Amino acid sequence: MTDPDARPLWHPRPQPVADPGLPTRVRVFEVGPRDGLQAEPEILSPEVKIEFCRRLLATGLGAVELTSFVPARWIPQLADAEEVVAGVAVPEGVRGVALVPNRRGLDRALAAGLDEVSVVVSATESFAHANLNTTVEGALATAAEVIAAAGEVGVPVRGYVSMSFGDPWEGPVPVARVAELAGRLHAAGASTIALGDTIGTGTPGHVVDLVERTVDAGVPRDVLALHLHDTYGQALGNVQAALRVGITEFDSSAGGLGRCPFAKGATGNLATEELVWLLHGLGIETGVDLEGLVRTSQWMSRVLGRPLASRVATALTAAGVS
Amino acid sequence: MTDPDARPLWHPRPQPVADPGLPTRVRVFEVGPRDGLQAEPEILSPEVKIEFCRRLLATGLGAVELTSFVPARWIPQLADAEEVVAGVAVPEGVRGVALVPNRRGLDRALAAGLDEVSVVVSATESFAHANLNTTVEGALATAAEVIAAAGEVGVPVRGYVSMSFGDPWEGPVPVARVAELAGRLHAAGASTIALGDTIGTGTPGHVVDLVERTVDAGVPRDVLALHLHDTYGQALGNVQAALRVGITEFDSSAGGLGRCPFAKGATGNLATEELVWLLHGLGIETGVDLEGLVRTSQWMSRVLGRPLASRVATALTAAGVS
Repeated sequence: MTDPDARPLWHPRPQPVADPGLPTRVRVFEVGPRDGLQAEPEILSPEVKIEFCRRLLATGLGAVELTSFVPARWIPQLADAEEVVAGVAVPEGVRGVALVPNRRGLDRALAAGLDEVSVVVSATESFAHANLNTTVEGALATAAEVIAAAGEVGVPVRGYVSMSFGDPWEGPVPVARVAELAGRLHAAGASTIALGDTIGTGTPGHVVDLVERTVDAGVPRDVLALHLHDTYGQALGNVQAALRVGITEFDSSAGGLGRCPFAKGATGNLATEELVWLLHGLGIETGVDLEGLVRTSQWMSRVLGRPLASRVATALTAAGVS
Repeated sequence: MTDPDARPLWHPRPQPVADPGLPTRVRVFEVGPRDGLQAEPEILSPEVKIEFCRRLLATGLGAVELTSFVPARWIPQLADAEEVVAGVAVPEGVRGVALVPNRRGLDRALAAGLDEVSVVVSATESFAHANLNTTVEGALATAAEVIAAAGEVGVPVRGYVSMSFGDPWEGPVPVARVAELAGRLHAAGASTIALGDTIGTGTPGHVVDLVERTVDAGVPRDVLALHLHDTYGQALGNVQAALRVGITEFDSSAGGLGRCPFAKGATGNLATEELVWLLHGLGIETGVDLEGLVRTSQWMSRVLGRPLASRVATALTAAGVS
């Protein structure tokens, strides 16, 4: 036989084998330009951010969070929101989204021409205080105000519930509390409710429990999304558990861009490449070009001058994808 | 309220929430001292290896692959197998295992006093040729010879089937082929059959399919184990799928020690910390002390002078575990 060492290596890709009972199509909600970049120390130029968004959209992603309309003194990394949005051509049928902290942020986002925004509420008082400078009720009231104002012009609002699993100060977060808040956010009119495992401590049984209790609290299953961090390497196990209970929208960040602000050196957002590999391997359609994502992450890695966290990007780069 | 920034951070640990229908206890088979160290470039002293095994056993692990009785010219990293085994006190009831390549290796392992060994067969001709210097049939014949000789002295033999999912030269590996080989290894008398995702390309549906076909080929479910690599970050998703079809033994490496020889810079073995976090989070008993594992990996990281791959170890270190 031919010496295998002399032969080119296989160019790996996920082999679709369906796992019965799962959804057949899933929406990947890319948060790299917002949640990823706001957690990195570098402040990139608007041109680089626009190019990042352009490359991401070219992979077929159906939803990209482009930036955040927060005051520059809060998040200097995203001080150029208007310029970025103006420079990105979001294709017809694709969701180009920006996070807004309040009514003023919404007005900026609407003036920039966006047709979907997102808001953040907190499941814990500690995070509401530390990151949103308010209370749980205060954040919910602000979100309701944004949802109402956006509704008047027909703009849907995606609501994140941060610290839906664990909180860096308070520890485990009660499922009943998160389900109640998600129910109130839905009642206020949020178009999507993204349950955030902001510190990555969730596990599959916890995911199933939280999804079912949130549905019991009146939130339709197809309105729910999961925003998972991979701090403890558990995110894909949690995606799988969520797929089994009918969740069809997941957040992730190309290359795993972003860090964990609560554990220095630790991983933050689930990498989009890992999510897409899992989904394609389960025979679930995403519309996303996996190798295009890897090339986008390679480009961002060169921009930042360091390797990114995605294991798929690392391994496919070693296997010759470029 | 108290300023959260002034309060100590929570010390995260998995919150057990059972996922109904899963096993209640799982065996973690630690391969760091063998599969991990043989894939690292450094050659450590026997004293360091003995200390590594001692620390691992102190965490409550029920099975540790201590070394490999292969000729030193093949794997210089593990040339000191007799010395390592002589220096490690394996507690009563705990499996201290060594890999043996052939009858000669078995004799050395038995002389060293081990009461369990492991052998490797390959699901593909390419890997049999490149890494075992034989054919698929040749490797199976050698394994059968080892199993027969070990059986005469009452020593169980664990059989690895390498490249059970994908092969670096041949690509996807047919499920029927792997199931047939596993069936023959079982018929030859192997006590455990560890299906190896050596390049990490497996996905959950593939795992379920392979387990079921292997059971159909005559291998009892409780004889099967999974040896997963995390090259594409998919290992824990695959563990979860395997749990749902009744698999109760999984291989992993403390700290994620070991690399992928087929993708430079890529991750190799699933980290034991990630596996234990998942299992404990599912309410599944392992008998393993997770923080003890993290401290062992911190120690090994200092020995090697570089960070290890485990995300749990990285995040818990940042959270103050030491």
